[in-house]
Amino acid sequence: MTDTKFLLPESAIPTHWYNVVADLPAPPEPPRGPDGKILAPDALSAIFPPALIEQEMSAQRWLPIPDAVRDIYRLWRPAPLYRAHRLEQALGTPARLYYKYEGVSPAGSHKPNTAVPQAWYNAQAGVRRLTTETGAGQWGSSLAMAGQMLGVKVRVYMVRVSYDQKPHRRSMMRTWGAEVIASPSPHTTAGRAMLEQDPDSPGSLGMAISEAVEEAAGRADTNYSLGSVLNHVLLHQTVIGLEAKEQLALAGESNPDVVIGACGGGSNLGGIALPFIKDADVRLVAVEPSSCPTLTEGTFEYDFGDAVGMTPLLPMYTLGHDFMPPTIHAGGLRYHGDSAIISNLVKAGRMEAVAYPQGKTFEAAVTFANTEGKIPAPETGHAIRAAIDEALAAKETGEEKVILFNYSGHGLLDLSAYDDFLNDRLIDA
Amino acid sequence: MTDTKFLLPESAIPTHWYNVVADLPAPPEPPRGPDGKILAPDALSAIFPPALIEQEMSAQRWLPIPDAVRDIYRLWRPAPLYRAHRLEQALGTPARLYYKYEGVSPAGSHKPNTAVPQAWYNAQAGVRRLTTETGAGQWGSSLAMAGQMLGVKVRVYMVRVSYDQKPHRRSMMRTWGAEVIASPSPHTTAGRAMLEQDPDSPGSLGMAISEAVEEAAGRADTNYSLGSVLNHVLLHQTVIGLEAKEQLALAGESNPDVVIGACGGGSNLGGIALPFIKDADVRLVAVEPSSCPTLTEGTFEYDFGDAVGMTPLLPMYTLGHDFMPPTIHAGGLRYHGDSAIISNLVKAGRMEAVAYPQGKTFEAAVTFANTEGKIPAPETGHAIRAAIDEALAAKETGEEKVILFNYSGHGLLDLSAYDDFLNDRLIDA
Repeated sequence: MTDTKFLLPESAIPTHWYNVVADLPAPPEPPRGPDGKILAPDALSAIFPPALIEQEMSAQRWLPIPDAVRDIYRLWRPAPLYRAHRLEQALGTPARLYYKYEGVSPAGSHKPNTAVPQAWYNAQAGVRRLTTETGAGQWGSSLAMAGQMLGVKVRVYMVRVSYDQKPHRRSMMRTWGAEVIASPSPHTTAGRAMLEQDPDSPGSLGMAISEAVEEAAGRADTNYSLGSVLNHVLLHQTVIGLEAKEQLALAGESNPDVVIGACGGGSNLGGIALPFIKDADVRLVAVEPSSCPTLTEGTFEYDFGDAVGMTPLLPMYTLGHDFMPPTIHAGGLRYHGDSAIISNLVKAGRMEAVAYPQGKTFEAAVTFANTEGKIPAPETGHAIRAAIDEALAAKETGEEKVILFNYSGHGLLDLSAYDDFLNDRLIDA
Repeated sequence: MTDTKFLLPESAIPTHWYNVVADLPAPPEPPRGPDGKILAPDALSAIFPPALIEQEMSAQRWLPIPDAVRDIYRLWRPAPLYRAHRLEQALGTPARLYYKYEGVSPAGSHKPNTAVPQAWYNAQAGVRRLTTETGAGQWGSSLAMAGQMLGVKVRVYMVRVSYDQKPHRRSMMRTWGAEVIASPSPHTTAGRAMLEQDPDSPGSLGMAISEAVEEAAGRADTNYSLGSVLNHVLLHQTVIGLEAKEQLALAGESNPDVVIGACGGGSNLGGIALPFIKDADVRLVAVEPSSCPTLTEGTFEYDFGDAVGMTPLLPMYTLGHDFMPPTIHAGGLRYHGDSAIISNLVKAGRMEAVAYPQGKTFEAAVTFANTEGKIPAPETGHAIRAAIDEALAAKETGEEKVILFNYSGHGLLDLSAYDDFLNDRLIDA
């Protein structure tokens, strides 16, 4: 039997991020201000450091990864590529299933791939304090860890309902020295207004973004940091796909037939898929929840990135910035919009999109756990569902397909979701 | 800078376990029945399969690892060896700190190293049902996963207080198909007697062992499985140290100066330390909680392995089988006795033992999390405390010591313990 794990030495950590903007099928449309005018780069300077604004606007194909960032990446990168032999056997498929395991990072997901450079570029610019928001907690944890390692204080506005329901994510962020505040909070104008209206508000991601942006914009010593959607975030995540290409070669494979990732804002999907963009024979597949079907049922237009209209307007598929998705467990996929890059690819027909109800994704996640061992995050369960369905289709046709998916994060802080699934308590969405 | 991770290919997974019984400094003393007579091997046959009884009694130095077991080990083994560069820098020590990362297994600790062969040997013997007990849940989770992969049903008696306080470990076991029952339970004579006495009993590890053993002994289709203490358990864990030796060589090191592991029953410590037993220049160090100081303050004598006297008598350091340790967070270290092998080594002077109060171990664990990223299990925090103290001692003397410790498991299901530490709610023990 061939190997299960394909490992690269630390010297193989990429030296450059891949900027897909240089190779998009259609020219990218620029972000615009609320007045509809194309955004000037300095409109972002109140909340982002110059280096990140430059990356956000760049059309240069390869951008260098600073040595100090690669040095922290070494704590968990290169992430292993696994072949899911036991899952293949259980499915009886002739397909070969590979997954890139991003759960290996200390925070448990791909998010530190961008948290570390974001904290580092801010520190380089003399910024020693960052605000951000978090829903399920994967992003807040990652920025907390990165900030701790790079001497940047982090304040996380955590959606109140998650703050109450996921005390362990909260403890994780505090262990890494971050300040965690339930949102809506009395610290901001937006928060106070919301609390006045409803003192028991459960909060929302949109509200938490508003609070984090308001604070960063209003304080000279503080910047803001975002965990998905933006070009520079997807840029940082391309280490995933760049490594996976090398590892597939180690496994004796040429290009995969299909590359799959769950899609909320688009960062883990972009990370694994973008480096394959020029390989025309490789299908790229976005997987989203049926209950938040941005790519499969949304419209392509300029919309705000947050719920209350504080961000620039972005060209993307959207369900409307006031869309409120049901409270499914894959909190990382509950986003009304999508990355402009992912939207560009879907619109141009270079990327496909599928949607699943959460029950089907948990079925797939449990099948994975029972064969391969690892218990995936609910978000990752979406990618696994699509990968299994591709493998079953290959069984029908007898094709020896090569399927690659991104195992974006582990589910060890999401076990109550499995409990809900096993006890038939999932909401039907 | 030298590498951070030292990785071995799957072909380097050991082909044999190392049986230290062949090389103990003093001849091992045999287990005895309650009547004081030396135990006959068939006295164990009601609850263990023949192959495991043979391993338990064996004095042969190398015992082969079945291919089917190595095949499942490949899902996470060889486990990586890391050098803790960032921790070294933070401590300002000339010592080189290495840790073997057993948190990489799907269940999150070293426990699957023995859960897999135990489930496999039982399945080979036609046994399709196992009972066991679990306290904190690391062991129960590991046997659940192994049983699921090998077609063996698992029933876990989980100490009632943990069952109520750690719902996520419970969900993990259920995700892997195990049945989890709060102990004391109405399923056994022992459980019913306890419930009659106190319907709200919080349970204890001793009580849970009694229930699991009673059920296995009374049912022809069911065996019992134990996660530590016994010779065959330590035997299976030697893959840890065998791999670590190869990895230190990859790192350009000869033998370490000191090898450190936390010690409850002794399985993770034995796993990393036993393969170094014949390297006379390597110090071996057991780290235990001050509140359960078996090796540092117990006496060496024959005692029962469980709290109520159902097991054979074992020659070991013990605090008395009715000793009830305070409810510290390192549940895996709350054991009145110790492995006969570890006890033999300490008695003979080949292994040292130190004890720490839990506050000092959490300080060390947080220092580790803030430098290296990973958040360790409270048990692992004990090994880290001792490793840091060795590194600080080396700083005093200016020695370039090589320190190896076992990172026995991650703390992602123990985050409420960190919350207690950060909020000054730890009990002073």
